[in-house]
Amino acid sequence: MSATVQPAYSGIIVPMVTPLASTDKLDEVALERLVTHLLAGGVHGLFLLGTCGEGPSLSYRIRQELINRVCQQVAGRIPILVNITDTAGSETDLMARHAANAGADAVVIAPPFYLPLEQFELREYITCRVRQSPLPVMLYNMPALTKLEFEPLTVKRLADDPRIVGLKDSSGDLSYFESIRRHTRERADWSLLVGSEQLLVPSLQIGGNGGVCGGANIFPQLFVQIYDAAAAGETDSLGALVSKAGELGEIYDVGCRSAGCVVKALKTALKVIGIGEGLPAEPLRPLTTEEHAHIHKIVQTLGLELVSDVRGMTATKV
Amino acid sequence: MSATVQPAYSGIIVPMVTPLASTDKLDEVALERLVTHLLAGGVHGLFLLGTCGEGPSLSYRIRQELINRVCQQVAGRIPILVNITDTAGSETDLMARHAANAGADAVVIAPPFYLPLEQFELREYITCRVRQSPLPVMLYNMPALTKLEFEPLTVKRLADDPRIVGLKDSSGDLSYFESIRRHTRERADWSLLVGSEQLLVPSLQIGGNGGVCGGANIFPQLFVQIYDAAAAGETDSLGALVSKAGELGEIYDVGCRSAGCVVKALKTALKVIGIGEGLPAEPLRPLTTEEHAHIHKIVQTLGLELVSDVRGMTATKV
Amino acid sequence: MSATVQPAYSGIIVPMVTPLASTDKLDEVALERLVTHLLAGGVHGLFLLGTCGEGPSLSYRIRQELINRVCQQVAGRIPILVNITDTAGSETDLMARHAANAGADAVVIAPPFYLPLEQFELREYITCRVRQSPLPVMLYNMPALTKLEFEPLTVKRLADDPRIVGLKDSSGDLSYFESIRRHTRERADWSLLVGSEQLLVPSLQIGGNGGVCGGANIFPQLFVQIYDAAAAGETDSLGALVSKAGELGEIYDVGCRSAGCVVKALKTALKVIGIGEGLPAEPLRPLTTEEHAHIHKIVQTLGLELVSDVRGMTATKV
Amino acid sequence: MSATVQPAYSGIIVPMVTPLASTDKLDEVALERLVTHLLAGGVHGLFLLGTCGEGPSLSYRIRQELINRVCQQVAGRIPILVNITDTAGSETDLMARHAANAGADAVVIAPPFYLPLEQFELREYITCRVRQSPLPVMLYNMPALTKLEFEPLTVKRLADDPRIVGLKDSSGDLSYFESIRRHTRERADWSLLVGSEQLLVPSLQIGGNGGVCGGANIFPQLFVQIYDAAAAGETDSLGALVSKAGELGEIYDVGCRSAGCVVKALKTALKVIGIGEGLPAEPLRPLTTEEHAHIHKIVQTLGLELVSDVRGMTATKV
Repeated sequence: MSATVQPAYSGIIVPMVTPLASTDKLDEVALERLVTHLLAGGVHGLFLLGTCGEGPSLSYRIRQELINRVCQQVAGRIPILVNITDTAGSETDLMARHAANAGADAVVIAPPFYLPLEQFELREYITCRVRQSPLPVMLYNMPALTKLEFEPLTVKRLADDPRIVGLKDSSGDLSYFESIRRHTRERADWSLLVGSEQLLVPSLQIGGNGGVCGGANIFPQLFVQIYDAAAAGETDSLGALVSKAGELGEIYDVGCRSAGCVVKALKTALKVIGIGEGLPAEPLRPLTTEEHAHIHKIVQTLGLELVSDVRGMTATKV
Repeated sequence: MSATVQPAYSGIIVPMVTPLASTDKLDEVALERLVTHLLAGGVHGLFLLGTCGEGPSLSYRIRQELINRVCQQVAGRIPILVNITDTAGSETDLMARHAANAGADAVVIAPPFYLPLEQFELREYITCRVRQSPLPVMLYNMPALTKLEFEPLTVKRLADDPRIVGLKDSSGDLSYFESIRRHTRERADWSLLVGSEQLLVPSLQIGGNGGVCGGANIFPQLFVQIYDAAAAGETDSLGALVSKAGELGEIYDVGCRSAGCVVKALKTALKVIGIGEGLPAEPLRPLTTEEHAHIHKIVQTLGLELVSDVRGMTATKV
Repeated sequence: MSATVQPAYSGIIVPMVTPLASTDKLDEVALERLVTHLLAGGVHGLFLLGTCGEGPSLSYRIRQELINRVCQQVAGRIPILVNITDTAGSETDLMARHAANAGADAVVIAPPFYLPLEQFELREYITCRVRQSPLPVMLYNMPALTKLEFEPLTVKRLADDPRIVGLKDSSGDLSYFESIRRHTRERADWSLLVGSEQLLVPSLQIGGNGGVCGGANIFPQLFVQIYDAAAAGETDSLGALVSKAGELGEIYDVGCRSAGCVVKALKTALKVIGIGEGLPAEPLRPLTTEEHAHIHKIVQTLGLELVSDVRGMTATKV
Repeated sequence: MSATVQPAYSGIIVPMVTPLASTDKLDEVALERLVTHLLAGGVHGLFLLGTCGEGPSLSYRIRQELINRVCQQVAGRIPILVNITDTAGSETDLMARHAANAGADAVVIAPPFYLPLEQFELREYITCRVRQSPLPVMLYNMPALTKLEFEPLTVKRLADDPRIVGLKDSSGDLSYFESIRRHTRERADWSLLVGSEQLLVPSLQIGGNGGVCGGANIFPQLFVQIYDAAAAGETDSLGALVSKAGELGEIYDVGCRSAGCVVKALKTALKVIGIGEGLPAEPLRPLTTEEHAHIHKIVQTLGLELVSDVRGMTATKV
């Protein structure tokens, strides 16, 4: 394999939140602003309808509309990955075809998350989905929510298929991450992405290719700078940047630290900087006024400017 | 509240499996046979599209078709409950309306099973669904698969709403079951059903109203007899009946004891008695030939006759 | 086996707390008062050095002194069971011999609680201890603290040995309890005791022999009355008694609901009625002043009288 | 703090197994051979009576004898750390004094492992032990066995005390490890050691100071070479060394992968190279003949020579 082969997806891939006007309706203005904000921040890709994007909570109609709108706006400038995870294989396949038609670059699949499975069933299921998908597939390891992990040996076997192009690991378990790196080292083009903001730097130190960082919805440049500094081995400047990301990360402690609270905190922080109304999809409930005020304060302390206008939006300061 | 108020759903409610001709196609002949078999067995109700029915694994199209066919065939002879649990509230509501239009009696809702929730969010979510549902709602506690239980105090509060009519507990935890009984004792019409076959008798001893027993797909009369004997306090005859149910339950040990293996074992046992081809829905994979042979032997030892013909089907012997 | 064979240990067996004067010193006066209080309350047995008795937290010297004092004071009026669970087999055996020499009736053994074991290793370990023990042995199932349960099939096999005389189940899992009852039904002399206060009545309904109820340290008569009423099938009077026990149980909610908080709450409640200083053993820390006041109020509301004097102590009122 | 301050304990610290002649008796010859073997292998320290050393399974008498013998033989050539973890504070303190008198360098304490604790109770407990201990204290994070982790903020606060000198992390969770590194970065003398062999290299890449590797009992030079290569950044030679350690690590898969199986595998592998009889302490049971043969084959494939004689023992080849 040539040394010039590179992972297709690396750097900061934003797990984009889905701005809503009401429970079953997109907030189209906020959505356009958010995409503009992320492009201006220099991020390397978008990840739609994942956990932060509340994919499983949305009706199929909204999911499809979101894919269409984002693909149209981005227009190929950065890659778009779409989470199509579902409990029903046929619905998953439909969504893969929709993503392909809309112009997305890859689909992302976590284990079907209702029934417990054996690993051979998981492998077979993924293989069936890959066969049906017009787009390359990235695996999504999220055991806290799917109850099932892609075991390293399962990943090793799936990695024999060149249409499977990487894994996004949201286990929060750097040991698992390191094990996947070892089990896929034959694949120079494999994209190994970490889903936990606080593991971004150590994951890069042990061979990861990038991060799917929720906080990049709010402060995209910061995460891009961290990635660049870590990739360049500039350990001196890393400290202050990581510390700033840690300050932003305090928004996750406002409610609780569950995945649901992460979503609510991100949507609230976006509202603070002028993007959307902070409304989560059912079954999540909005934060309280006190919690909102707390997040407001954290965001202000970071000096993030209000995103006042789609056209005239200036990059927020680091 | 008058002492004559009774729980609407009691006795043996069968968590019906969904016979498939292929991954995305109902086996209509087997389905009709299965319903005939269950009606002949004297069961007190049907529970469609639950865990045994592989609801979350099926496309929406098949789920709707199944509801239509079963409601039409049963034609009001026994109550039909439909599991409409989903991760998206709006899809859940659509299915409730579909069930109502088809003529079902009640819908069943477990917690949305992707994002972790606080109990107040769960309560609010259920309240929204109840408001949208044309049919009465039964709660479905299945923490192993949904990662979230209906805490006893949550149930107590939800039980203030008369449109919520009971709870099916598949936790396998008799302590939880007993706690729910205590927390709902104000509701004389509350149906408290147990989802674990081996807890059927002790659950009735501590005040339960019936069981949602997977094995009743295969041997409906046996479970009806157990229920009748326990309800009448005939402890002498119970021993032999429970022991027979235990023998049938050995089919669950053939693969593993996960929920997926229960489904596969039930479908295989139905095939042995002439109903369907034993095909599970994706992501489950069929049992091996050896496992099939093992189940064949268990079913034969129980003396269950082949269900040879829909019209001429005779009740299997106990 | 004759129908007249009865379980040796039934009714209310108190998991006695260990009154301390300081971290490594018994409170001898409080200890004598507590034993007098329990005897006056009519309990059917004592269980020393269990979880409530903080056995594993105490030095061996204090454990031995406690056994000596209690055996001497009780003088055979009711049976005394001694928890000798340890991580080292040889230390366990030493304590069994000590308990026998002091005049105890039986020893109680939970799985050694550091290394994870296979069930065959657990079985073999228990068999070795039984062989070394001069006293009959009761099993102690406490998986939350020992990380390992006595699986039902392990109990069934251990029950072949007549020197093993029962099982105390503190799993809080009535399903497990019911399973143990089924797996030991050949042993008419088997004592199956439940460790959870709130499961006392349902456990008796499905065939249990008694309860090891922490609250009986405070209010022994109440638990004896519940046991008597349940045994006699007097369901009418049970409601009020169980409700009173539930009120007492509110003391467990004061700190948290962990085993450590149960111990702290019991010791504090005993202090309120005049027995001891409420001091837990290391590593537990005493409750705060606010928590103490909260427990004081709960105990007062129940109308429990102060135990003013060892000789002149009158039974507290129900 | 001067830049020349270094962690006191770094490199390869062997979690030494405890050779036994019978359940309650040391194998003195094997013990002497083992220590000679480890010193010859160039290891940087010994860790006695930890999980691999079966400390909690041994009588206090044997624990003390082991400490005495090893301290005498090592005679200050490398540091000796002694695990004194217990459920009773006073017994812990006694062992700390014994270790100090015998000439050990530091003691190691994990959370008391029976009752669940709050973090403030754990902190207070450790502070009491430190006050009583004549030796510096290292923390031991082993949540799988103690059910309680030293939370990062607890470690940060304990690290204010200079008598607490480091942490050995056996969580297997590199994310936790990384978090501890961040929370103790003020302490230039803090020793952060990893307990998992397969995490040795990545832990060093993210700032760890060494490893407590069970496999170093068998093949001490190999782990010393890995440590040296990683410390020097010689990534080229690391691959082959790590791969060899991975081959040795296959002995852990022979039984199961629990901590108990690790101990049994290590003792059996030592027997293969001529050290001891492979006997674990109760409650563990020895491996079967087949399992023994399997381990023999793995060890032979690695080309490890028999340690034939204490005096004439030659270093095994890498």
